[in-house]
Amino acid sequence: MDLLNEAISNIKPLNKEAMDKARERQNNLTKPAGSLGVLEEISIQLAGITGNVINEVDRKTVVVMAGDHGVTDEGVSAFPKEVTSQMVLNFINGGAGINVLARHVGAEVIVVDIGVAAEINHPNVINRKVKLGTANFAREPAMTRDEAIQAIEVGIEVVYKEVEKGTRILATGDMGIGNTTPSSAILAALTGKPIDSLVGYGTGINNGVLDHKRKVIEEAVNMLEPDKNDPIDVLAKVGGLEIAGLAGLILGAASRQIPVVIDGFISGAAALVAGRLCPDAKNYMIASHVSVEPGHRLILDELGLKPTLHMDMRLGEGTGAVLAMGIVEAATKVIKEMATFEEASVSEKNG
Amino acid sequence: MDLLNEAISNIKPLNKEAMDKARERQNNLTKPAGSLGVLEEISIQLAGITGNVINEVDRKTVVVMAGDHGVTDEGVSAFPKEVTSQMVLNFINGGAGINVLARHVGAEVIVVDIGVAAEINHPNVINRKVKLGTANFAREPAMTRDEAIQAIEVGIEVVYKEVEKGTRILATGDMGIGNTTPSSAILAALTGKPIDSLVGYGTGINNGVLDHKRKVIEEAVNMLEPDKNDPIDVLAKVGGLEIAGLAGLILGAASRQIPVVIDGFISGAAALVAGRLCPDAKNYMIASHVSVEPGHRLILDELGLKPTLHMDMRLGEGTGAVLAMGIVEAATKVIKEMATFEEASVSEKNG
Repeated sequence: MDLLNEAISNIKPLNKEAMDKARERQNNLTKPAGSLGVLEEISIQLAGITGNVINEVDRKTVVVMAGDHGVTDEGVSAFPKEVTSQMVLNFINGGAGINVLARHVGAEVIVVDIGVAAEINHPNVINRKVKLGTANFAREPAMTRDEAIQAIEVGIEVVYKEVEKGTRILATGDMGIGNTTPSSAILAALTGKPIDSLVGYGTGINNGVLDHKRKVIEEAVNMLEPDKNDPIDVLAKVGGLEIAGLAGLILGAASRQIPVVIDGFISGAAALVAGRLCPDAKNYMIASHVSVEPGHRLILDELGLKPTLHMDMRLGEGTGAVLAMGIVEAATKVIKEMATFEEASVSEKNG
Repeated sequence: MDLLNEAISNIKPLNKEAMDKARERQNNLTKPAGSLGVLEEISIQLAGITGNVINEVDRKTVVVMAGDHGVTDEGVSAFPKEVTSQMVLNFINGGAGINVLARHVGAEVIVVDIGVAAEINHPNVINRKVKLGTANFAREPAMTRDEAIQAIEVGIEVVYKEVEKGTRILATGDMGIGNTTPSSAILAALTGKPIDSLVGYGTGINNGVLDHKRKVIEEAVNMLEPDKNDPIDVLAKVGGLEIAGLAGLILGAASRQIPVVIDGFISGAAALVAGRLCPDAKNYMIASHVSVEPGHRLILDELGLKPTLHMDMRLGEGTGAVLAMGIVEAATKVIKEMATFEEASVSEKNG
């Protein structure tokens, strides 16, 4: 069996028994039942994922997948294409937003070149380039079906390696100038929602470019006719290499029973693809922030994910996801370290 | 001049020059301008507070003010009154939610007995008891005006001492069985909003008790007629000792140019009082989470504060505020540690 189908076939439903035990423990801790809200819910989800009531997320990894997009030829982005490779070097040198925030929460940053349109060849960048950027999907499919599957499988392989090295929680990160355009196109193709509701300003285009971006996406979806019931067809025709890689990362994490924190709009598009390929994978996802990009809220609703951080962020790179790793770690400490009513001799609720 | 008026007279507007410099630095960091949203805004606010572009919040303190409420005689809470003093001991022993979350972000927990209805006498509890709990405001004013001022000044004194010890950021915390009732009453008195919109389930009462709680609050406000233009009168008649103490803490922090992270509904009521006593104090407040209590959103809107954490929490103790301290610390690191476009040789935005 190929890697993708093997990963999907290994994704199990959550362990209900462990979740019940976690819920029972939460109800015995010295606080009104449920009063720590999402911190309690996350601890119960983690129990369902790992089968253990007490979990640690001491080893944390954010994987930043980098790729370029042929559709930038249409002038849909505020930044020039070479910024993708420049930012990859910034990640390696520790100067980008993701580096600062990953250090803050104690996460390691792994950078994967899955399709940057330049040779990178740096020892600290994992070179898994499928090709030198996607084709311009305003004219032709972004990738072949085989390339899309290959990119998904890169994500699965990368995550399996990190899990072997001992990581306990993953965050998704992306770098790719122009990548809100394929993300909006994927969302349009998979949900059929109106273009206006799912295209935004990306890194900061003006209103004229926004109208153009909408038109490019609408025409591409009409021309290429991606099959909404075939997420791989959608990825291949209007997706991106880093988006495919992140979809694989999510499926791989779920198949290894590792929680995966989903970053913003681009990661959300990848999560939507992963959820369509395997609905049980959604149980392994933890939402982080809600982005300024209008389509992000739609994605979260489609996936049934509830974002904890409302920070008006729109940087990508995994920045929102690593911040949320701090929240997840807090959740693991609450269930592990809080005293019970009995231990602390605190009276319980009346009646 | 008395301590309260002296503190208020020392509260300055924010330093606009430092804020402009911080904004300029943010715009030169390797990310689209504004793309780190609230993390950027917080760094700019901190510059305005301290006058420095780069700030550190390495020493963090959450002050938990504990007090009891005579109005619990009316049966408005789900937990028995003795839980207040039991929880104070739980704080000292490190087993409560606030202890776990404060350890998570590296904050120290300071516990102040400002009005618990039992003798505590523990070396690790700061004994500043104004009296053994408030009177039952369903029958008579909760405190005298002098007691309310005394409680505010306890908060000012406690925060001055912590600032002398070197704290760089404060969080507000509360413990007091029944204290959503005075918080809702303060909000009703200061805003005149309908009772139904600002009374909630607290620690978990049922619908019958909720109706009764609303009636108790409405009748007390009608009977005692607190003056909406005199926040101290409101505190004295329908407030709480820990709420007054927290209002003082906020004013004291602002007068010492120290940012103060506001926790949930009870802390919010204190912040509303502080903001009414001195509008400039609002510039020193940083919002944390939005509570399940319906009145909390109203308070945040009144204060012009935007909560970052949407966690469905309703525990109090400062738990939401210390979680947000982690966000504030992240903001200080972004502006300090990220590379500029020039440093990283990254191309800037087109056009």
